[in-house]
Amino acid sequence: MAHSDSQIEELVKKMTLEEKCGLLSGLDFWHTKTVERLGVPNIMVSDGPHGLRKQDLAGDHLGMNDSIKAVCFPAACATASSFDREVLKKLGETLGDECQAEDVSTILGPAINIKRSPLCGRNFEYVSEDPYLAGELSATYINAVQSKKVGTSLKHFALNNQEYRRLTNSSNCDERTMREIYLPAFEIAVKKAQPATIMHSYNLINGEYVGECKWLLDQVLRQEWGFKGLVMSDWGAVSDRVRALEAGCDLEMPASRGVNDKKVLEAVKKNPELEKTLDKTCRRILRWVYDFEDNRQKGCFDFEAHHKIAREIEEESIVLLKNDGVLPLNEGSKIAVIGEFAEKPRFQGGGSSHINTKNVTSAISALKEKGIAFDYAKGFFSENRGKSESEIKALIDEAFALAQKAETVVVFAGLPDSFESEGYDRKHLDLPAEQNELIEKIAALGKRVIVILHNGSPVVLPWVEKVNAVVEAYLGGEAVGEAVVNVIFGKVNPSGKLAETFPLRLEDTPSFTCFANDKTNTNYGEGIFVGYRYYDTRKMKVLFPFGHGLSYTTFEYESVSVSKKSFSDNETVEVTVKVKNTGKVDGKEIVQLYVSDKTASASRPAKELKGFEKVFIAAGKSAEVKFTLDKRSLAWYNTDIHDWYAASGKYEILIGASSRDIRLSETLDFTTSQKIPLEITPDTCAGDILRDERTAKILRDFTEAHSDQEEGESSKEAISQEMRDEMFDGLPIRNLLMMGNNATQEEFEEMVEKLKKAVK
Amino acid sequence: MAHSDSQIEELVKKMTLEEKCGLLSGLDFWHTKTVERLGVPNIMVSDGPHGLRKQDLAGDHLGMNDSIKAVCFPAACATASSFDREVLKKLGETLGDECQAEDVSTILGPAINIKRSPLCGRNFEYVSEDPYLAGELSATYINAVQSKKVGTSLKHFALNNQEYRRLTNSSNCDERTMREIYLPAFEIAVKKAQPATIMHSYNLINGEYVGECKWLLDQVLRQEWGFKGLVMSDWGAVSDRVRALEAGCDLEMPASRGVNDKKVLEAVKKNPELEKTLDKTCRRILRWVYDFEDNRQKGCFDFEAHHKIAREIEEESIVLLKNDGVLPLNEGSKIAVIGEFAEKPRFQGGGSSHINTKNVTSAISALKEKGIAFDYAKGFFSENRGKSESEIKALIDEAFALAQKAETVVVFAGLPDSFESEGYDRKHLDLPAEQNELIEKIAALGKRVIVILHNGSPVVLPWVEKVNAVVEAYLGGEAVGEAVVNVIFGKVNPSGKLAETFPLRLEDTPSFTCFANDKTNTNYGEGIFVGYRYYDTRKMKVLFPFGHGLSYTTFEYESVSVSKKSFSDNETVEVTVKVKNTGKVDGKEIVQLYVSDKTASASRPAKELKGFEKVFIAAGKSAEVKFTLDKRSLAWYNTDIHDWYAASGKYEILIGASSRDIRLSETLDFTTSQKIPLEITPDTCAGDILRDERTAKILRDFTEAHSDQEEGESSKEAISQEMRDEMFDGLPIRNLLMMGNNATQEEFEEMVEKLKKAVK
Repeated sequence: MAHSDSQIEELVKKMTLEEKCGLLSGLDFWHTKTVERLGVPNIMVSDGPHGLRKQDLAGDHLGMNDSIKAVCFPAACATASSFDREVLKKLGETLGDECQAEDVSTILGPAINIKRSPLCGRNFEYVSEDPYLAGELSATYINAVQSKKVGTSLKHFALNNQEYRRLTNSSNCDERTMREIYLPAFEIAVKKAQPATIMHSYNLINGEYVGECKWLLDQVLRQEWGFKGLVMSDWGAVSDRVRALEAGCDLEMPASRGVNDKKVLEAVKKNPELEKTLDKTCRRILRWVYDFEDNRQKGCFDFEAHHKIAREIEEESIVLLKNDGVLPLNEGSKIAVIGEFAEKPRFQGGGSSHINTKNVTSAISALKEKGIAFDYAKGFFSENRGKSESEIKALIDEAFALAQKAETVVVFAGLPDSFESEGYDRKHLDLPAEQNELIEKIAALGKRVIVILHNGSPVVLPWVEKVNAVVEAYLGGEAVGEAVVNVIFGKVNPSGKLAETFPLRLEDTPSFTCFANDKTNTNYGEGIFVGYRYYDTRKMKVLFPFGHGLSYTTFEYESVSVSKKSFSDNETVEVTVKVKNTGKVDGKEIVQLYVSDKTASASRPAKELKGFEKVFIAAGKSAEVKFTLDKRSLAWYNTDIHDWYAASGKYEILIGASSRDIRLSETLDFTTSQKIPLEITPDTCAGDILRDERTAKILRDFTEAHSDQEEGESSKEAISQEMRDEMFDGLPIRNLLMMGNNATQEEFEEMVEKLKKAVK
Repeated sequence: MAHSDSQIEELVKKMTLEEKCGLLSGLDFWHTKTVERLGVPNIMVSDGPHGLRKQDLAGDHLGMNDSIKAVCFPAACATASSFDREVLKKLGETLGDECQAEDVSTILGPAINIKRSPLCGRNFEYVSEDPYLAGELSATYINAVQSKKVGTSLKHFALNNQEYRRLTNSSNCDERTMREIYLPAFEIAVKKAQPATIMHSYNLINGEYVGECKWLLDQVLRQEWGFKGLVMSDWGAVSDRVRALEAGCDLEMPASRGVNDKKVLEAVKKNPELEKTLDKTCRRILRWVYDFEDNRQKGCFDFEAHHKIAREIEEESIVLLKNDGVLPLNEGSKIAVIGEFAEKPRFQGGGSSHINTKNVTSAISALKEKGIAFDYAKGFFSENRGKSESEIKALIDEAFALAQKAETVVVFAGLPDSFESEGYDRKHLDLPAEQNELIEKIAALGKRVIVILHNGSPVVLPWVEKVNAVVEAYLGGEAVGEAVVNVIFGKVNPSGKLAETFPLRLEDTPSFTCFANDKTNTNYGEGIFVGYRYYDTRKMKVLFPFGHGLSYTTFEYESVSVSKKSFSDNETVEVTVKVKNTGKVDGKEIVQLYVSDKTASASRPAKELKGFEKVFIAAGKSAEVKFTLDKRSLAWYNTDIHDWYAASGKYEILIGASSRDIRLSETLDFTTSQKIPLEITPDTCAGDILRDERTAKILRDFTEAHSDQEEGESSKEAISQEMRDEMFDGLPIRNLLMMGNNATQEEFEEMVEKLKKAVK
């Protein structure tokens, strides 16, 4: 029987102040505390989000212990590339089952921080550079996990976009950029999926610890977005526990050794008002505990079945970056497989998301399993540490010799574990030098060369023009080897697309000069121009654009139509796109909808993703894809009105196969009834008054009545009509009497009073 | 007999409160007020800075009137390209003489705002994208004007880097960027030249009107830099007069109709303390009035002689951007001159710097004067307004026909007045379409084509690869035609270099996404990466780099030597560079010294200009150029210590002919005794404690004594040594007890106390 809110209220009433304060932090690394006197149980949380990293309770309490064996699914860098809500649903449900089987109340994740720079060490477990995509996919994942009566913890809220000094660095960012880039993924997830918990991040925002930022944790999260769940700290993120409690952080994790609980106790004794906040917090904690406890389902899960799901998810996620026709491979070809990742795939990243697997399928074992003939050479070490120059050289020579005898060479390249991990950022975008050297040498042989990439974030590919195909497997989970083999031999038609831009050079990245280069402060100087918003607006060349991914078939974008050509604030428009599979095999296409603001009402990116759908289309058939747009699809965050705003005017709807491959477009007319308020002060500009219908006539009458402009020839030369017009547009009305106006001060003040009345 | 400070003090004492308040604003557009009762005279100021724009007093008082006839010298965009302190000295002395002759107390200027974007409408009268260059040249100019007992008004202080909404827009910028980019030119000018006055700008900085910003006008300007002069408002910049007075704005210009004076009067009556500030202000105003009045020199000036100076200055300023050997021209060649700018040169910009000239030399009149044969076709209208398509087309056809018959075609291209002016910004970097069309057509003929540019700020040149030579004349003053003819026919060997980068595309400019695109706020998101600091750090291709300019001779950079290889805080180093003129004609070379910080102590631009010298070298001869470097030459502004800071370590000294043409280098070792203070709080990071010799041992002992780290295999896999090291480096000490540390809370607190004592 589920606990009612009033039962929880009763419990809180019965709790002593000490018991309440005790609830505010964990029992240990992974458990909440019990209240034995009242029979309140504790619950366990575990790291996620692409597999269960449940602490092995046989060990001690320090969190550095072994975790239980679990299935490792593809990391978010991969699953994001599926652009497929169904894939995230499957992943979420599967993990929810595992949590129930393992008595885990809440699986920490999804992690949806925006990929501000490809250097961020933790990008492999984040979703995208685009907030809409990150929000939509994670909302689906959360709903799926929670459908199993298991909680999620949406993290790391917010603006934790680098690992460097993440515990003490301040992300300095203007509000519009936060609202448009760094917060909307969280906003979508909260509004569409109500995660049981949110994990606030370590960092500071504009000089204030996130955990102590009432604006973010209370005003934005609870009041504006309507979040009902519990806010917990990232592990060790709490600086001032009392301020954190007041700001809206409910649960400190892990244990505070009682130190912070005591500080809260003292603070409440000094300020009894604070107990109301404490009670609210306890209610939320108990609600969360009983939501799991009351719905506990015992069970077990099938490792084999989940391994198969891991493979299927990866098959939907692999991105075919380049293919000159060499893929899919023919089994008859004389194939050389090269690269240690073929026998020991890099399938996950380091840190809190690291899964203790028991069944990893390498490409080599998958090839053997399928009876496909091949030769193998290691080519390079997946980690070079402790290896000598001559050992490295010997591997290259051996692999090169093997490649010379082959018709087709498949190189399994990628980043070593030490290159990307939680806890530190990458320093560059390069693959290890010996991998590039080997691929260059092999590419020069004139054989068919396919490169498979194992990496969690974009790399630069100096040899990309010289190889025949490139397959991005990302960190593809424990079944990655099988998925890759299925793709390259055509058993699976690849359908993933990039959820992030691959730049040509590190120097091209938006935050190149202001990423992780100061111990204390990180200025988000590029503002809203993150990822493709930057590259597209600046019309820069990239290696592979956002949304890019090839298929073994071809798609023709036949038509786009809209349910109406013009709409207004509370209406929606349906956009229908017809796509045809014009090739010979069945395939899935990810159709993308971007919006481009033509109203010139604000600085906007060249385009922004506002819809995506993955659709299966049989060879020769067509399919329809539908999108729904509303005001928010067109809007930017206007800090003058503290609201989303779409100016009246034209918006272009761009339908593309990638952000750089727009196939169809349509123009919509939008009309808003939202008014930008006009405040009349001495500093209000004449132009703004003239553009407001309530005030235009008052000012026009005044200037016409009192103008005494008369001037000489050389002055007319000095001050052109353009200058005159623009200067008047930006003239604060306090300066109206300065030039060419013979009104008295009294007449002026009277006019200002009229203006003020008009806008009241 | 000059007024002593005590005489001025006496005057202030005798003044009534009303009289004092009356002094706070102008009498009219150009004069200060008298205090008749006490015999205090008024003085007149006039616009500058590249010529006198004195109001014709025959007219009315509104400032839109005719100005007197005066000599128009090259604008700052041109004179900056001279990189020549002697040129600025000549200009300043000449203008000082004109002011004395015309009874002008103070010539408003120099204007030294940093060219943040090439779009800023007023760039033509600003100096550079580099603060060191802008500061050095303007200090020389100020000293020269003021040597004639005439005041200057250093403007527009500060961060007024766009025209769009300049009266009400807030320049939002972090302090380090202000200190390193937007303030140093003012700092150098104040410290080296003590301008009589500084004009504060219209805009706001981080939400506060500059005129009300005590931090800038008092703390930075007066207390830190030691400014002794008077601060006046830009014309119409005052919003709240009382706040402005308190902040340090002495004089409001122009007249306030008594309104603001009255407000100050009321404020002083309410708060008598304010009278002290008022007295200081009156002292500064009277000091300034008498500094001119007591040193008045009657005289007149010679228009012809000053016209010649205008020509000489332009000859030092013209930049030869490209030359495949076609220049200098041979007088025997069959020359077609094309472009209306050849008969009607664009030699100055619009707005307050606009001079009423009486003697403008066009290229055509100069050619005729020199008896050089040529044919002429207008080619295009300098302004298209009111012209029909067919009129425009007819000019192109006529010019093309003329070009076909010539051997050499000299096109005088450039921007119309309406493209760049005070009061509004450019929207793009293009020349008018018909000019580009005409040049493309002519270039396709295979003749020798030389393009002369008349513009105040960079333009893009789509045809640059197809023409033989490009000459940048900028807005070259009234003698520009003669100067250009002297350069292209080799009478003058060009020696100017670019004081700003010419980018390839508008989209490449540092502030492309955050320049003048919001009515209220402008985020200086690119931070310190302005101009070549941006292009060089991001390794971007440019059209012409900062510091670039060709000569008719060639220079070999023979050697660089330093007076010492290592130095410390209070020492200087002398750098000596030997340059040889390896060509057949005499010439001048601008030798540039850049510093590159190799200490990795902060995010720094790839290189920064810290020295420049223009040197004449006769054909076949060598010359030595000397630079002096000190700590500041290496330093960045460290907001943690509110001071300039150069970390101990290596600095590369780069000697170049441009920012992209480094010829010699040398490495210096610097040692600082400046300590970065370490504050111990619970949020202090372990790494910072370990890197400070005062505290390292305390923490190391503690962690060694209390470590109980023991962990399982899968945890070691999840958390690599790199992650562990980096995490510990960034671990706030409040979290020391969280992981693998068995100390008690008491032992921990004891250790923190020890740390605090150690850093006291």
